[in-house]
Amino acid sequence: MRATAPVRQARYENLELATRGEVAVLKLARPTRRNAWTMPMVHETSHALAACDADDAVRAVVITGSGDSFSVGADLSEGSISSPGSDEDPIEVMRSIVTPRDVRKPVIAAINGDAIGIGVTLSLLCDVRVIARDARLATPMTRLGVIPEMGAHWSLARIAGWGVAHDLLLTGRRIDGEEAVRLGVCGEAVDRDRVLERALEIAEDIARHTAPRAVAVSKYLLQKAEWTGFTELRAEETELFARVADEPDAEEGVAAFLERRPPRWSGRASAEPTWQAPGPHDIEEDEEF
Amino acid sequence: MRATAPVRQARYENLELATRGEVAVLKLARPTRRNAWTMPMVHETSHALAACDADDAVRAVVITGSGDSFSVGADLSEGSISSPGSDEDPIEVMRSIVTPRDVRKPVIAAINGDAIGIGVTLSLLCDVRVIARDARLATPMTRLGVIPEMGAHWSLARIAGWGVAHDLLLTGRRIDGEEAVRLGVCGEAVDRDRVLERALEIAEDIARHTAPRAVAVSKYLLQKAEWTGFTELRAEETELFARVADEPDAEEGVAAFLERRPPRWSGRASAEPTWQAPGPHDIEEDEEF
Amino acid sequence: MRATAPVRQARYENLELATRGEVAVLKLARPTRRNAWTMPMVHETSHALAACDADDAVRAVVITGSGDSFSVGADLSEGSISSPGSDEDPIEVMRSIVTPRDVRKPVIAAINGDAIGIGVTLSLLCDVRVIARDARLATPMTRLGVIPEMGAHWSLARIAGWGVAHDLLLTGRRIDGEEAVRLGVCGEAVDRDRVLERALEIAEDIARHTAPRAVAVSKYLLQKAEWTGFTELRAEETELFARVADEPDAEEGVAAFLERRPPRWSGRASAEPTWQAPGPHDIEEDEEF
Repeated sequence: MRATAPVRQARYENLELATRGEVAVLKLARPTRRNAWTMPMVHETSHALAACDADDAVRAVVITGSGDSFSVGADLSEGSISSPGSDEDPIEVMRSIVTPRDVRKPVIAAINGDAIGIGVTLSLLCDVRVIARDARLATPMTRLGVIPEMGAHWSLARIAGWGVAHDLLLTGRRIDGEEAVRLGVCGEAVDRDRVLERALEIAEDIARHTAPRAVAVSKYLLQKAEWTGFTELRAEETELFARVADEPDAEEGVAAFLERRPPRWSGRASAEPTWQAPGPHDIEEDEEF
Repeated sequence: MRATAPVRQARYENLELATRGEVAVLKLARPTRRNAWTMPMVHETSHALAACDADDAVRAVVITGSGDSFSVGADLSEGSISSPGSDEDPIEVMRSIVTPRDVRKPVIAAINGDAIGIGVTLSLLCDVRVIARDARLATPMTRLGVIPEMGAHWSLARIAGWGVAHDLLLTGRRIDGEEAVRLGVCGEAVDRDRVLERALEIAEDIARHTAPRAVAVSKYLLQKAEWTGFTELRAEETELFARVADEPDAEEGVAAFLERRPPRWSGRASAEPTWQAPGPHDIEEDEEF
Repeated sequence: MRATAPVRQARYENLELATRGEVAVLKLARPTRRNAWTMPMVHETSHALAACDADDAVRAVVITGSGDSFSVGADLSEGSISSPGSDEDPIEVMRSIVTPRDVRKPVIAAINGDAIGIGVTLSLLCDVRVIARDARLATPMTRLGVIPEMGAHWSLARIAGWGVAHDLLLTGRRIDGEEAVRLGVCGEAVDRDRVLERALEIAEDIARHTAPRAVAVSKYLLQKAEWTGFTELRAEETELFARVADEPDAEEGVAAFLERRPPRWSGRASAEPTWQAPGPHDIEEDEEF
């Protein structure tokens, strides 16, 4: 899963990965199948996310879909629903892939059109979700005789609350982008032709204004807080606050603010000691990450 | 608590339990007391929910109130607030009853009118809540010198967030159905005379389109996710996904979808190995379920 | 940290603490610095909150800011961002202070104007948040090269969901009071000159109508529920329900309700056995509180 080449050199068959300044744009690219998922696309996405994580020239990642759809779920024309386009063991694959949660920088889902099944559950692992007002969004797994995956039982409940999660996952009903925002599933609904642009604005704001290590530590703590009591989390947060506040970027950040000039960061997310690069080994060594 | 007779044969004194196709409708029926709770009604509700769980002919359950109210809380005219209409030990009763959480199929609260106290906290254990726009909803326990029960400190916070839970439970203030939706406490507010109809639409959609075992496994995972870290939950979810995807209903679900015909499920929720029938023994044997 | 003198006798340099009936109003009072935080102000706030906790004549607490701001964060003109106005070890200070979470009665944030950084994270530890519609709210720590503190990674996610928390903490972007309510960060947005008045209404409603011990036990359970499974929490809740229902205030509360008269409570929050007075010792003795 490790990727060491810079993101700008990456080439994939089912994706387009490009950089735009300090923002990487990962576009799901099976447009004739409305970006439906196959196992090869899962592997490529995992590899691309690992590349984005490792490359310090990338400060934020945007995931979107080519054409009019974000992604309409598993490609049912490619064999079994659990392993389309491959005869791999889905348990082994799921165990080893890198997801947006593992990337030590913000990942923004630009849901430019219909998002179904794994198209939705992938976006729930991103940090921010922008959706087209008229996009259709559904997790219809129970209607196909299976269940949601990618940790959706966990992530949807924590993003939008347990009531919304029970509603959407058990019924599998379809909502649109406006309702997704009203229910708290997505952060913002905009016109379809504005989705990528808006996601890029958010990503560029992060790239321009925030310190890479501070963002990585903050994302680490947000994930740690999910399964930790308040007192324990606050104790670790306080220690990390004091450690980060002693690094050069804290001095630079305050100085730039007081001098009303752009900051020049020296810290690198990939060298942040709190949080190691993602990879299969993490699952083995550490139950929670 | 075990109930083995089919739901359609059940008879109760404080409830009406009826089936409408594959949907069971459990109506709180003490209309002269605005469906206020007594211990006998608690026991009957527990028994009725166990019957709905055990009967595979029931695919979803709707709980509503007779007359103009959903339920106005403990019947204070029937003795102590902790055990109205009985001299039982409330701790023993609470420990042994079956709640909507224990039912291995979706339970929908049709809050057709005022919901107060345990009328609210019961509905918070349902999967979906539809409320009358002008229904009054309150958990006024602290105003009576007691505290909320039925796990409300836990469920309201997870459904609507900790801010809303601290607000409503500590102040005991009254809101209406519209505000309940705005705060995320309920999913949908409709006109009073549409509440039961709308809840039945949701239940019938589940009965018609979703696979019983997939729904049971998904509800199990939603509950497991409440107190489990992401990585651990995703590992179990992945294993269950692979197991369910190997069952005949997954093949049937995908085939029906591709052939644009209604699915014919063969799996049964009551035989789902993941999740045993509810009952007092569960509390003893397994701390978390 | 222990404070035993009544709240009405307290005097501070960076705060004003006053009582209005049974409500204590704690006003951050460094108006020439827009109520920016220094270490002395942190210590005084901790002391004032301990005093409010200990004084049974205080039934609810309102925290607000003097002048046009709530608080604009750490006072960067007073030295390091981690310990402004002092050379203390911030880890030691954070470990020992009393926060709104520790107060055994409701604490309401009246966010009367701009709230930045620790001005926001302090308010996230309150039970209820009222904000001025046009107040600006931001946690811009990552833009200064540091990370949010006061447990914000934990509290914001539980109040407003993980999507909102990742958005606001990682990007550090600015929102206004209206958006804060839409995102679930605050409960209510009102006109700027109505903020304190509205917070006092809520506090006075609590003081007039709710039982002090029931409220303390309910706040304890809301905090316990954050890191406890459902079954375990419900078991403790049921035991506490039965215990509280046996106290004189439960009899008084029901009698007053049935007789349509104001209740006369005899229980005291400071004598509630469930929850001891806050203080540094708690951190040592009990990992979770």
